[in-house]
Amino acid sequence: MVLRLGHRIPRDLRVTTHVCLTARAFGADGLILADVVDTTLEKTILDVCKRFGGGFWIRMGEPWRQVVKDWKSKDGEIVHLTAYGISLPEAMKPIKVTSGPKLVVVGAEKVPGEVFEAANWNVAVTNQPISEVSALAMFLDRYFEGNQFSMEFENAELKIIPSAHGKKVVNLAEPES
Amino acid sequence: MVLRLGHRIPRDLRVTTHVCLTARAFGADGLILADVVDTTLEKTILDVCKRFGGGFWIRMGEPWRQVVKDWKSKDGEIVHLTAYGISLPEAMKPIKVTSGPKLVVVGAEKVPGEVFEAANWNVAVTNQPISEVSALAMFLDRYFEGNQFSMEFENAELKIIPSAHGKKVVNLAEPES
Repeated sequence: MVLRLGHRIPRDLRVTTHVCLTARAFGADGLILADVVDTTLEKTILDVCKRFGGGFWIRMGEPWRQVVKDWKSKDGEIVHLTAYGISLPEAMKPIKVTSGPKLVVVGAEKVPGEVFEAANWNVAVTNQPISEVSALAMFLDRYFEGNQFSMEFENAELKIIPSAHGKKVVNLAEPES
Repeated sequence: MVLRLGHRIPRDLRVTTHVCLTARAFGADGLILADVVDTTLEKTILDVCKRFGGGFWIRMGEPWRQVVKDWKSKDGEIVHLTAYGISLPEAMKPIKVTSGPKLVVVGAEKVPGEVFEAANWNVAVTNQPISEVSALAMFLDRYFEGNQFSMEFENAELKIIPSAHGKKVVNLAEPES
């Protein structure tokens, strides 16, 4: 599960959309948009899910402190992705060992110090200024060990078929009888 | 080298900034912004380079067809990242075997069919709708085999030191005498 902090409407619509699409494609169950409700974002993501399938969900407007508190009360663990954290290769070892479900927290810009303290691990995908979109992709890639390349998305209406030089899309939706 | 197509001012400023930061942190030499000149973007990237070091460069306003033509005339090879392409794990094998320098092309939305034809390889980071930011990170991660985690950035004024729960930044700039 991914928790997206700091989303500002409408400024962050495109980047947060990219965060959501990445979370979905790389195997996260769903994403919570903390504190705000962005119906444009929700509509975009639900439309992708309808067309391309899978069970990815999006929730919005929940205070992040409550999400964190609830998660921890159920023995969940928190990974916060930040340029200030421990480098991903080193951080992954303890993260993979523990069995608790993981909440991956990504911020937009200024992330409150409380998040750093609440996280079980603060993880950096390089200690350079980067994008939360690429940080999330890299973390999920390492966590799920590249499994995103063999995921199936059930109930898809459309499916892209890999092509060396073209664009092949198959319409899987049932024809109306 | 990365070629960024389809950047629209001001709409794509944040996403293209994320593309540039990802390219830099993951080891690309530089990025060409095709067809348009965005001085706000340039200023942001140059500021990051000044503060965090390294030799990453940005060029702008060059017609993409000319960039592609020049690249190919010098025996360069082109990797185009697209959801329609061959899956990354499969595509990487021939890409790693050939020795020509690689130009990685990332588009914003509608990428012209000519790009698909001009590319030596059209590569998909999953065949799901995703973000060019995460696609670029994943490609460079595989191409450079995770080397981004050990890169050094020369002439940095600031350096982030990995921290388990805090924010440690060292000022490396020479004091004025």
